Amino acid sequence: MTAGPEERNGLTALARGLSAPKGFVDASMAAPASGTIRLLGGIPAPAALPVEATSQASAQLWQDPDAAVASLQYSPARGSDALCDWIARREGVDPSRIVVTNGGMHGLALAVLTVVERDATVAVDDPVFPGFLWALEVSTTRILPVPVLADGFDVEHLARQLATGARIAAAYTVPDFHNPAQVSLSAPKRQALIELAERYGFYVIVDNPYRELRFHGRDQGVAAFNESDRAIHVNTFTKTLGPGWRVGWLVLPDHLVDPVIRLRNRLDVHTSSVTQAIIERLLTDDSEWFDAIVRGATALYRERSGVLIDALREQLPDALDVVPPEGGLFLWPRLTDDAVDPAALFRRAAARGVLYQQGEFFMADPGERSSARHLRLSYSDRPPEELREAVRRLAMAF
Amino acid sequence: MTAGPEERNGLTALARGLSAPKGFVDASMAAPASGTIRLLGGIPAPAALPVEATSQASAQLWQDPDAAVASLQYSPARGSDALCDWIARREGVDPSRIVVTNGGMHGLALAVLTVVERDATVAVDDPVFPGFLWALEVSTTRILPVPVLADGFDVEHLARQLATGARIAAAYTVPDFHNPAQVSLSAPKRQALIELAERYGFYVIVDNPYRELRFHGRDQGVAAFNESDRAIHVNTFTKTLGPGWRVGWLVLPDHLVDPVIRLRNRLDVHTSSVTQAIIERLLTDDSEWFDAIVRGATALYRERSGVLIDALREQLPDALDVVPPEGGLFLWPRLTDDAVDPAALFRRAAARGVLYQQGEFFMADPGERSSARHLRLSYSDRPPEELREAVRRLAMAF
Repeated sequence: MTAGPEERNGLTALARGLSAPKGFVDASMAAPASGTIRLLGGIPAPAALPVEATSQASAQLWQDPDAAVASLQYSPARGSDALCDWIARREGVDPSRIVVTNGGMHGLALAVLTVVERDATVAVDDPVFPGFLWALEVSTTRILPVPVLADGFDVEHLARQLATGARIAAAYTVPDFHNPAQVSLSAPKRQALIELAERYGFYVIVDNPYRELRFHGRDQGVAAFNESDRAIHVNTFTKTLGPGWRVGWLVLPDHLVDPVIRLRNRLDVHTSSVTQAIIERLLTDDSEWFDAIVRGATALYRERSGVLIDALREQLPDALDVVPPEGGLFLWPRLTDDAVDPAALFRRAAARGVLYQQGEFFMADPGERSSARHLRLSYSDRPPEELREAVRRLAMAF
Repeated sequence: MTAGPEERNGLTALARGLSAPKGFVDASMAAPASGTIRLLGGIPAPAALPVEATSQASAQLWQDPDAAVASLQYSPARGSDALCDWIARREGVDPSRIVVTNGGMHGLALAVLTVVERDATVAVDDPVFPGFLWALEVSTTRILPVPVLADGFDVEHLARQLATGARIAAAYTVPDFHNPAQVSLSAPKRQALIELAERYGFYVIVDNPYRELRFHGRDQGVAAFNESDRAIHVNTFTKTLGPGWRVGWLVLPDHLVDPVIRLRNRLDVHTSSVTQAIIERLLTDDSEWFDAIVRGATALYRERSGVLIDALREQLPDALDVVPPEGGLFLWPRLTDDAVDPAALFRRAAARGVLYQQGEFFMADPGERSSARHLRLSYSDRPPEELREAVRRLAMAF
C-alpha cells in the first residue's frame, strides 16, 4: 500500500484524525451575501459586552506600576489566586479545585485529554453541540448518543445502555439552556446522572456556558456536579464578558487537579496574565458588578427571544412548534409539517437573505433524524428589527 | 495485577505519562529564603517591559468602540490578519504560513502533537531546555541526544546516527543564543540540518525565543528554516514584550498550516482577541517601535551580562570557564576543577543566598555528564548590584 500524502508528510495519527470544517462550522464561517441576516452563532450582543468597564479596569491596571509589570510576567499555571478565589466562591467549592482555562473549548479539550482514553466511547447529548464532537476528536470519535428530552439528557436511556454492557469513559451534556435544544436538565436527573457515573466509574463532562443567562424558571443547581468526584464542570466568561478574552475555568475533583495542571502547563504554560489581571479587576473592584452585567445581558436576550417568538407565532403560526426558552441564546423550533424538506427550506431561506443552523448539524446519531426537523435560531447578537425581518424572510421561504 | 489509583481514577495514558515537576522546574518554583538572589529563569527585566506603551495602546483600543467590541468577540483561529501580516514581514514569508499561538511553549506543543507520533524518537539538543522535554511528553519520552558544540547542534553527529539506522520524527534545537549553552548554530550547519531533514523526512523544530536579543556578532539567519518544507519555526513575544501576554507564533510549511490550525482550534479556539488587539496596536502604530523596544532590552541584557562576567573574572578567575555570550539571557560557565562537586557547591551557594540552575538539569543523555559541570546563570532580571553580590556569595561557596 502506498502511503498517502499526509502520511508521507509525517502527520501524527492525531493530526490526521481531525476532520476538516463542515456543516455547523462551515455555515458559521461562510461569508454571506451583503444584507443577509445571520442567526448562526451563540455570540454575545455587542451592547451586552462590558467595553466601558473594561476600559476603566484596564487603565487602572496599566497605571499601577507593580500590577502592570506583574501582568506582563509569568503567572501560576492554575490561574491567578484572586481569580480562582472569586470563581470558587461563586461555584461554592474550595479554590484549590479551580483551574483557569482559555475558555470553554479549552476546558472541554483538557477534560477529554485527561479522562478519555484514545478510541474510548463517550456518551453525548443528541442533539449535540458539534464543537464538542470536534474537541473530542483529540481522543476519539466513538460516541454513544443519548436523547435530550424536555428535561434534558435521558439518564434512564444511558442507564439501560450501561446495564446491557455498554462502557463509556465519560458522558457529555450541557445542563443549563442546552445548545441547541434550549432545555435544562432537571435537578433529580442531575443527581441520577452523577450516581450513574459513580456506579460505573465514568466522568460527567458538564458544559455550562449559558448558566448565568436565565430569563425565568427555577435554577436546577450545580451542587450535584461540584460535590462529585466524577464530574468535570466546565465554564467560561465567553457568554458574559465576551469570547475574545479566552478565559474560562474548570471545577475539578481533587484528584484531577494536578493531572490537568500538568497537561495545561505543557500545552501553553498558563492563561494570559494580562487578560486575567483585567478580568480580576472587573470582578473584584465592585462585588456587585458581575451580577449587574449578567442582569443586563439576560434582560437583552430575554427581550430578543420574545421578539423572535412573537414574530414566529405571528408570521408562521402553524409551520413551527416553538417553546419559549428559560434562558440562553438559542431557539430550537421544530417543523410541524413532515412534507417540508428542511434542506430545501434552508436553501430558500438563504436565497431570501436569512441564515440559521440546520438541525441536521446537531445530530449525534445518524439513525435518529428527528433533530433534522429542527432549526437552530440564535437571537443574541441581532437587534429586534433584524429578528422581525429575518422571520419575514423565513415566512417567505415556507 | 491490581490497577493503580491513577488507572482506577480513569486517567488517560497521556495524563498518566506526564511527569511531576522536578529539577529545573522545582528550582524555579521553590520559595527561597528572604534576601536570596535568584539567577534562575529567563525572565525579562521589569525595566525592559513596555508598560507605558501598553498603557497607551490599550487606552486607544478601549476608546475605539468598534475595535473594542471586536476585541471582545471571536477572531480567526490562525490569528488576527494584521498581526500575522506584521510577523510574516519580519520573517520574510507569506502571511498564510503564520499561525499565532499562546507563546513559545504552545508552539512547541502544537508542533509535537502534529508531527511527533506517540512513542516516536526525537533528536534533541544536549544540553537541552528541559521545558521542551516536558512539552514532548504529550507524545513521547524517546529522545536521541545530540551534543551542542561551540557552533551549536552537532549536525554531523546526527547524520552519523541516521546513517547507521536511527530514525527520528523530529530534531529540536534552539539556534540563537542557546538555552542553556548560550551558543548559536552556524549558518552552514543550519543549512546542513535542513538538508538532513529533507533527506531523511523528519521535521526540524526550531525554537527561537532569544533571537532578537543580539549583543554582538553576526546573525546566522533564519531563511534556511523559513524556506524549508521540513522546518517548524517557533517564536514568541515572551522575551521582548513579556511572558504574561502568552502570544507567539509559528512559521509553518504550507502543508502543515491547516493541520495545525485544526488542532489549535480544537484545543482552545484561538489566542485571546484582546491580547492580539493590544499587541497589534503596539507593533503597527509606529513601525519603529518594536525595534526600539528590542534595542533597549538588548542594551540592558548586554550590560548585565558584562557585569556578571566581570564579577566572575574578578572574584573567581580560575574556578570557572566563562565565554561571553553573543546575546540572549544566559551564561553557561564550566567548573574548571574536577575536584569541585557541583551538587555540594550548589548547596553551599544556596546557604549563602544565591540560587542558579544546576547544569545536570539540562542533561539530555544520562551517560554524558559534562553538562553537570556547568552552571546556568540568568542575568536578565537582576540589577547590576545584585549580580555583583550574587558572585560574591558564589565565591564564598567555592
